[in-house]
Order: sequence, then structure tokens, then C-alpha cells
Amino acid sequence: MKEQLLKKNTTKTAFSNLKKAPVVQPNSMKPLGIVGGGQLARMLALKAHELGIKVAVLSENAFDPAAQVTSLWTQGALGNRADLRKFLSICSLVTFESEFLDAHLLESLSRETSVPVLPRPSDMALIQDRLTQKEILLKHRLPTARFHSVATEDEARWAFDDLGGRAVFKKRRFGYDGYGTFIVRSAQDLKKFLPELTKNSHGFIAEEFVPFKRELAVMVVRSLRGQTVRLPFVESYQENARCLWVKGPLRKSAKLTALGQKLEKFLSAISYCGTMGVELFDTGSKLIVNELAPRVHNSGHYSLDALSDDQFSLHIKAVLGQDLVTPRVLSPGFAMMNLLGSTTEPATWLLPSEIKLHWYGKEENRPGRKMGHINVLAATPEKALALVKNRRSCFRV
Amino acid sequence: MKEQLLKKNTTKTAFSNLKKAPVVQPNSMKPLGIVGGGQLARMLALKAHELGIKVAVLSENAFDPAAQVTSLWTQGALGNRADLRKFLSICSLVTFESEFLDAHLLESLSRETSVPVLPRPSDMALIQDRLTQKEILLKHRLPTARFHSVATEDEARWAFDDLGGRAVFKKRRFGYDGYGTFIVRSAQDLKKFLPELTKNSHGFIAEEFVPFKRELAVMVVRSLRGQTVRLPFVESYQENARCLWVKGPLRKSAKLTALGQKLEKFLSAISYCGTMGVELFDTGSKLIVNELAPRVHNSGHYSLDALSDDQFSLHIKAVLGQDLVTPRVLSPGFAMMNLLGSTTEPATWLLPSEIKLHWYGKEENRPGRKMGHINVLAATPEKALALVKNRRSCFRV
Repeated sequence: MKEQLLKKNTTKTAFSNLKKAPVVQPNSMKPLGIVGGGQLARMLALKAHELGIKVAVLSENAFDPAAQVTSLWTQGALGNRADLRKFLSICSLVTFESEFLDAHLLESLSRETSVPVLPRPSDMALIQDRLTQKEILLKHRLPTARFHSVATEDEARWAFDDLGGRAVFKKRRFGYDGYGTFIVRSAQDLKKFLPELTKNSHGFIAEEFVPFKRELAVMVVRSLRGQTVRLPFVESYQENARCLWVKGPLRKSAKLTALGQKLEKFLSAISYCGTMGVELFDTGSKLIVNELAPRVHNSGHYSLDALSDDQFSLHIKAVLGQDLVTPRVLSPGFAMMNLLGSTTEPATWLLPSEIKLHWYGKEENRPGRKMGHINVLAATPEKALALVKNRRSCFRV
Repeated sequence: MKEQLLKKNTTKTAFSNLKKAPVVQPNSMKPLGIVGGGQLARMLALKAHELGIKVAVLSENAFDPAAQVTSLWTQGALGNRADLRKFLSICSLVTFESEFLDAHLLESLSRETSVPVLPRPSDMALIQDRLTQKEILLKHRLPTARFHSVATEDEARWAFDDLGGRAVFKKRRFGYDGYGTFIVRSAQDLKKFLPELTKNSHGFIAEEFVPFKRELAVMVVRSLRGQTVRLPFVESYQENARCLWVKGPLRKSAKLTALGQKLEKFLSAISYCGTMGVELFDTGSKLIVNELAPRVHNSGHYSLDALSDDQFSLHIKAVLGQDLVTPRVLSPGFAMMNLLGSTTEPATWLLPSEIKLHWYGKEENRPGRKMGHINVLAATPEKALALVKNRRSCFRV
């Protein structure tokens, strides 16, 4: 299988040439490698075990969430050429849990070692930079907020005026969970923001302020062989710019279906391989793409218990070129709640009934840190949300 | 929590004194230990990870199914006092995947190290010997086939006559998947069987031959705090004395409910803690308990995908004294099929759609070896069985 994957990875167009799914030989294949040891890597690794795909993890510390769940853990720095090279060389195929890696380094090591990295580092590079991410959304005519590239004070002032005296400035790189985002509502705010420009060598984008009614999300998956599937649209709720809960499925509508189809076409147009998380604003009249993530995503964690297949298993099947089938929703309503740290005291809990716990095994509790999540099923999304909020009280994090 | 568990373990009656579920402190507790490294241990470990319970595995080889899925693997022989003692000393609580351990050794090491072993080794001892298992079934008035203890040729002949010239001879210890079972239908069969008596120091039981219409199974769970739950009754089908498939849920009936309640009472009566697998014969007119297993069980593997909680998570919650809630069935029909090896060639597969795969990661394929299992959901048990049989062809094991 390795050879087949390699051939497909050499050129962009060759990706869709794999007519049949490659046969998996679980015992004779080298492991699937995951770069990164956080909770996304942990959940990918657990599902790889279920699927019988040997799984290796590269991370800094032996107590990292994903390092605990496999015997094939490799200590290393994710940005270190020698560490990465050594890791790739023991794997048949490598994927990652964060888009904030050195895409060029990964690309060159993938060539050197002939070990495919999926999603391709070039897609990671496009998406990890908010400017190129916005440009690719425009190019593929996906609805997104108006924006300008901003590197200088002059550009910042012009963008602020052009966007109507209100703008959201976002670091082009390494922003997440609200870090690196500045909401500028007035000339005074702008003045306060301007010094940030010199602190950050990667520059910013300024985005039109979108007065949304609610935030939505959807996971779209495309396989090495070009099959696409998408999970149901869900509503997500952020508190302090961090996902707090998700509920779903949203009632089907022509608008959602049209956007879902457009997103699947987009993944095909860029020959993407793997799972992509898509965050959306719903303004009431319009749906606007807020952000893409070239990986499994917090807003898809409900899928572990609410669907007949989950985003982690689908990601693994996608990068292996196995058949993808749209998962069925197992319940008319579901909800996911993040267990966000609020203290540095060690976490404690009483396992509540009627929920599914997914704990990440992090060494330390910290305010705002994602320590785990809980999923529930119920007769409606609203009932599921009420239940999951209630059961949250069983956890002291 | 360790202290609370310990107190409860010192005497039999103290077991039910734990009024409230103990608070779990995932980071400060020593791991849950699993003695054994096979597929049952692997699935227990994967669920422990989800639940945030650190998990250690004791097994002989680093490539054992469960050894691959945790960073806390300890090499050791399951019957070796020093290896077991060392393992217990790093754990807060120990459970096991097989009843064929040295129960007395475990009991004494549990006392020495003050580390609870659950289910208690004394229950393991009762059940690992088919004679004491039958006696306990009788004592608690659970329906079971008539039997005699057999150690000598005279006893074997007498039992054969008394049971009507047809009997099933079973080794008192270490029998599984048909190994150690001899079906004797004639005087000639009996003659062939007799030399087995001298080969086996533990003796046999002779059981009445039960002409059953189908085999059923049910998992019953009792927690450290005395709560009991049971999973739905299912039909199981054996081929060459090995479980091939399971389908369910069985339609509810007064007879099944009554037996289910009796089994829950039985677990309470013996102050059992953990999951117990119960295999049954359905003769059409009667339900008869065939065999007990003081652990998670092959006939409960469907629960990983067909219920709102699975036997592995329930076992972990039970031994931790956490609340147990009867799981809901997520689909009107489900089926599980074992992937039994039929060759020594390395296994290969194409991941089929609409199934959930649970692969065990065994190094070698062997005829009759349980390599993994697949679960499916469908509109009826029969449809689920047809689907799972169909998808079986995607696996070459």
C-alpha cells in the first residue's frame, strides 16, 4: 500500500488516479504517524487502534495525551528537521493534529523519505496563513467576510476605514482560540492595536465585522481516491473565543445543502486529502465561512458518539484511501460540551450517567485548557444541550 | 479513592458499604492495572483511555494486543509471583481479562500490597472451576444442566449411565472455546474418552446433554457499590465451539426478564464486582445457564457500537464504584461477527462501509484465532446479521 500511496503523492493530479481502495495489510505495514501529541492526536490514535492501523506519535513529552495511548511514541520537537526525519522514516504515512507546523520542512522531508504526509503540506501552508486561506476561499467562490492584507500602519488605517470603521484584525499565522485576534470597534481601539503590527513579522488580515446570529460548523472529508463525505451541520457556541458546546444536527435546508455541496467541490478542486473543519457565521440571511482547519476539529467531537462513523476514523480511512460512506446520525439530537479548565487544582469528577466522557489525560489543569469533552444523545438538540450542561457539574476542572 | 477501595476490599461485607460513588482524580491516581494482554485487555485499555483512567498492562510480549495501546506496559508472566507483585505495586486497582489465573496467588498479593483485585480472586476461583461454578449455580437456584463430578473411570461410567447414555464431559479447569470439552454419545465414545481422565489432574464434570434450539447470552454488571445493570439478551452462534456471530436485541419476554432479574440477584448475593458474561441454552421451553465468565465477554462486543454504553466502560465504572445506568439500545437491530483466522497468511482487508471494525493487532494469523470483530446496526437483528455476514468477505484472515 505504501507504494501506491507514494505514487499518488508525487503529483497533485495523480491523487485521484487510485481507482480501487488499496488493500490494508495491518501486520506488515509500518505505522501511521501522527505529528503532535495533544488531544486530537490521542483520539486519532485510539481510533487507529480500533481500525487495526498501527500508530506512532511524535511529541515532546512522554505524558502528552497521545503519547500515553500507544507503545510507539517517539520523543522529538515538531519543528526539528532531524526529529521529524527520523519519525517519518519509521512510518508508512504521516498525518498531523495541528496546521501550525513547518509545511516546507514537512514537504521536503516527505520527498526525501518518500513517506507521504496527508493532508499535503502544501494545503497546510495555504490554510495556516489566514491571507492565503482567505484568497483560496475567494478563488473558489466560497462566501467569506471582506478582508484586506495589513502589514503597515497605513494599511491598517485604510482597511479600518474601508471596512466601515470597525474591523477584526487577525494575525496571519499561529492564531487560535482567539489568540492573535483583535476586535477593533473605534479609532481609539485602532490606536491601541497598531503597536501589535511591529510585534508580529507575519502580518495581519483585517476582516469586516460580521454581526452573526450564531456560529455553525461542518466537517468535510475527502479521501485519497477522491471520495467526499460531509457530516451534519451543527451549531457551535464560543465563550471567550473558545468552543464551549456544539449541538445538532441542524434541520436540513436548501441553503445548508448548497453550501455543503460547495465545500465538497472545494475539497475536490484542491485535491485535498483528509478531514477539514469548517467554521461558519450564520447572519440570519447569509452563511459565511469564518475559518478552515486542515484536520479533525473540536466541532466534530460529537461524532464519536452521535454518528455511525466519527471524524477520526473517517480521517484515517481518507488518508488510507479506503471507502468513505456518509455516516448516519444515531439520535435526533446530540450535544458536545468541552470540559474547559477553570483552575490549576487537579481535576476530579464523578462519572455522570447518560453521557460519554472523552478525557484527554493532560498532566495539568489550567484555566481555559481543553481537558476533555462529554457527549450526550437526546430526543432533540435542545434537550441534549440541556442534559450536557447539567452533567457538566459532575466535573471539577 | 484508593483508600476507599481498599477499605472495601478488606472484608466481603464491607463491599456494599460505599454509599456514594468515590470521586475520581485522574491525574493523581495510580493506573488501573489489567493482568493479561489479549483483545479483552486491549478493549478495556482503549475505553479506560477514553474515560481518563490511566491504564497499565501486564503481559508477556511487547506485541501483545493490549501492550500496543498504552505507554504503561509491563513485561511479565501472569503466573509469576514476583512479576505480579511488582505489577500490583504500581497500580491503584487491578482487573483481568481471563479467569484462568492463579486466584490464590492474586488474593495473597492483593493482601500483601493492599491493592484491590476486582472481580475478587475468590469469585474467579469459584468460576474457573466448572464444578464449583455448577455448585454455585445450583445454590442460587439458577437453571443449569444436571451434572456429576468425575475423577475416576468408575465415576465417568456411572455419570454416563445416569445422564442417559449421553453426556458432555468438560475439564474442570482451563477449558475454553471447546478445548477440554468431550461430547460422548455412545459407549464407544466413552471408551475413547476415558484415557483423558488420567491426562488431567483437575478432573472433569459430566453434564447432561442439552438439545438446545439456540444459544443466548447476556452481560450482567455489578458495581463496587452494589448497583447492577444488565445488557440486552442476544442470540449467539458458535461454529466449532467458537463464537462466530451474535445478533440482537432479543424481543423482551417474561421468561427472559425473570432470568435477567435472577442473574442480577445472583451477582448481588455473591457480592460480585465487575462484568459477568452468561452463556445460555434455549431449548424452546426452557432457558438453561451454560457457563459463566467473570469478565467482559465475546458475546458483549456488540455493545461497543450498538448501545449507549459498552461492556468495557461499564466494567471499569463498576470496579471504580462509579454509577451504573442501563444502556439504551441505539438501533432496533445489531449484529457482531468475529473475524476468525482461517490461514497463517498475513491478514489483509478493504475497510467495508457501514460496519465498525475492532481489530486486535495480533502478530500472527492462525486458523480459528480471534483476529478482530465487526459490528453493524440495522432495522432488525436479522438484517444486521445478513449485512455483517456480507461484509465479512472484505476481510482475508
